[in-house]
Amino acid sequence: MTDISNISALMQDIGNRAKAASASLASATAAQKQTALFAAADAVWAKRDQIIAANALDMEYGQKKGLSPAMLDRLMLDTARVQSIVDGLRAVGGQADPVGAVLAEWDMPSGLHIRRVSTPLGVIGVIYESRPNVTADAGALCLKAGNGVILRGGSESFHSSGAIHACLVDGLRAADLPADAIQLVPTRDRVAVSEMLQMTESIDVIVPRGGKGLVGLVQREARVPVFAHLEGIVHIYVDKAADPVKAMQVVLNSKTRRTGICGAAECLLIHRDIAAGLGQDLVNMLMNAGVEVRAGDGLSGTLAATDDDWGQEYLDAIIAARIVDDVDAAISHIRTYGSGHTDAILTEDNVTAEHFFARLDSAILMHNASTQFADGGEFGMGAEIGIATGKMHARGPVGAAQLTSFQYLVSGNGATRA
Amino acid sequence: MTDISNISALMQDIGNRAKAASASLASATAAQKQTALFAAADAVWAKRDQIIAANALDMEYGQKKGLSPAMLDRLMLDTARVQSIVDGLRAVGGQADPVGAVLAEWDMPSGLHIRRVSTPLGVIGVIYESRPNVTADAGALCLKAGNGVILRGGSESFHSSGAIHACLVDGLRAADLPADAIQLVPTRDRVAVSEMLQMTESIDVIVPRGGKGLVGLVQREARVPVFAHLEGIVHIYVDKAADPVKAMQVVLNSKTRRTGICGAAECLLIHRDIAAGLGQDLVNMLMNAGVEVRAGDGLSGTLAATDDDWGQEYLDAIIAARIVDDVDAAISHIRTYGSGHTDAILTEDNVTAEHFFARLDSAILMHNASTQFADGGEFGMGAEIGIATGKMHARGPVGAAQLTSFQYLVSGNGATRA
Repeated sequence: MTDISNISALMQDIGNRAKAASASLASATAAQKQTALFAAADAVWAKRDQIIAANALDMEYGQKKGLSPAMLDRLMLDTARVQSIVDGLRAVGGQADPVGAVLAEWDMPSGLHIRRVSTPLGVIGVIYESRPNVTADAGALCLKAGNGVILRGGSESFHSSGAIHACLVDGLRAADLPADAIQLVPTRDRVAVSEMLQMTESIDVIVPRGGKGLVGLVQREARVPVFAHLEGIVHIYVDKAADPVKAMQVVLNSKTRRTGICGAAECLLIHRDIAAGLGQDLVNMLMNAGVEVRAGDGLSGTLAATDDDWGQEYLDAIIAARIVDDVDAAISHIRTYGSGHTDAILTEDNVTAEHFFARLDSAILMHNASTQFADGGEFGMGAEIGIATGKMHARGPVGAAQLTSFQYLVSGNGATRA
Repeated sequence: MTDISNISALMQDIGNRAKAASASLASATAAQKQTALFAAADAVWAKRDQIIAANALDMEYGQKKGLSPAMLDRLMLDTARVQSIVDGLRAVGGQADPVGAVLAEWDMPSGLHIRRVSTPLGVIGVIYESRPNVTADAGALCLKAGNGVILRGGSESFHSSGAIHACLVDGLRAADLPADAIQLVPTRDRVAVSEMLQMTESIDVIVPRGGKGLVGLVQREARVPVFAHLEGIVHIYVDKAADPVKAMQVVLNSKTRRTGICGAAECLLIHRDIAAGLGQDLVNMLMNAGVEVRAGDGLSGTLAATDDDWGQEYLDAIIAARIVDDVDAAISHIRTYGSGHTDAILTEDNVTAEHFFARLDSAILMHNASTQFADGGEFGMGAEIGIATGKMHARGPVGAAQLTSFQYLVSGNGATRA
């Protein structure tokens, strides 16, 4: 039995076992990984009553801890949500295998034939907060890409994540894959997170999914490489050449479809020439939809914006709105206050749209489309482990293909270098 | 004038200027970047006497400091070496532009058209040691990929690097690009390196090129993401089905063509069935070529190998040699002692070669080819900034294309998410 009173030794042991499992996973067949994920989906459905009972313990703990209604809603599992976990596992299971793909191949005058082939990354550490479905999504995506994974869920979802994890292990066993390929940290102690961030010998990359507290901890302490997931300070620039009908529907959807996701719009930038007309119409529409609009000079909103409103991620029914002189002023505002996640332009002028695309370096740029499309599923990836805002390795929605690396396989016929 | 007595302020200023330059570089045209590199090549040739005179100061400093003859040779510039710097700048200048390429594009049922487009990484910090030509190579590759770069050369090459850097700035000016796009740290103080490793606000990635001391410093102190460049503990496994003629030529070339490069073979693993015949012939051939062979049981070499010889990077005319039972034993040895750089198998049995390829995760795996081909030029990349041994982002030879990131450009026609 593992001694969880010694967190450091516990985590080292988990790391070593993950590394050993990843070595055998790297040569697991596509069929084995698919079998494991389909069997895990079956196990989740078969054990749905146990999962929901485990979730009830978490809900009780969360209520005692005084979690907000929004947090409790994220935590809650019912039959419909368990069904969506099952669907997610099946969807990832059915995807094309991302490992072993020949990404490029060419011949050299020296006689060498060079192939660049996708490989697993190794061991991935996923640190997340309350949503228990992440246990299934992250475990499935990492396995699909041939990686060992160490999951560290939020303390609130401790029992739910444990019950879901048991089903993932059932799936691994059904496919004759090592149970250590998907491990869940069996303690709520936060020291385990700090340990994970230092485990350069056994973890190849950390994927943090959470709020500012987690992001700050990761930035201060991580020695292991990280797929940065910063805030989604999402801007929409409404150009003077915007189509008013499209603008009304895209702005409404970007802000109000779901306000708590990272792709929700947080700031509306409006070209001066249309501020009094379409601009004010957009502000009025948002207020009518129950959104608090913190408006800059020249717009009348619910409240007057202050300097603190630029660069705010509200994740709520609140939006900042500001008049800008032109597309370059919008670009400058976004460069100053954005987080490089997702930003959008609404215009019928393709030259202006191309300019906006060329001058901004956000992971996702949208033209005449809702920012709420910033999602792995909407990009055709089937599922995602998060939206990466860093520029290293993965960027934007992180699906199984982004959880791979590559190697060069070189064949000669006795070739020597001159 | 910059106050170089305050290294921290100096480096912050360099970082801020690099970040500002990179913002304008991101939209530099392919023609501008090409013009800059061709003009830099012209400047290096025109100022070759000044560069060689600056190098004489470095050689004098190096001799006083007691550098080894091998180190002094790496440092030395003559007309032929200046010519090769010129050739390198022209070669990178003439390459296809790696920025703005559509890496993938697809349509979604929602009506979105999604493009994945290559972009610059941002600002790259390159920390290197004595070879002054790295100043030109690294500066050119980073510029080609649209990145700002902060170059921190070795203290021994201080004057040579400064003279070459001045030519790169001439090139930037000729193309109307910001001079701050390629900066050279103007102090030998090692505190500048520690500063660079912490500059997460302004540097996107650090590329360290150097020996164990530098690698250790980077591993301890870096907060900025790093393209790991570990040692090249390069193995060659000679299978029982190896062709003797190919084996003799490939092993000789892998060890002796140049012993000081990271792709030089450091350990020979020989299948037990051919150890007494071909295996001993290989050992004898190497000894005849002046190589010290540290041989394991069953082989007679120059010396008996000790446990310390497994996993050694000699970078010299020394090689370890060991008998293994079969390909799996070779794989196990390489997994234990290798550094994931380059490893090779010599065999006529393609099934065994595929097994070796499937079970090892080195950045480069070779079949019947010299390990000395582990080089960006030999891979068709024109030049390289180093060989990355990590699995994040770049891997193997790092050319201009590996110094890019990507973003998603999404177009709709007023699309909203259901």
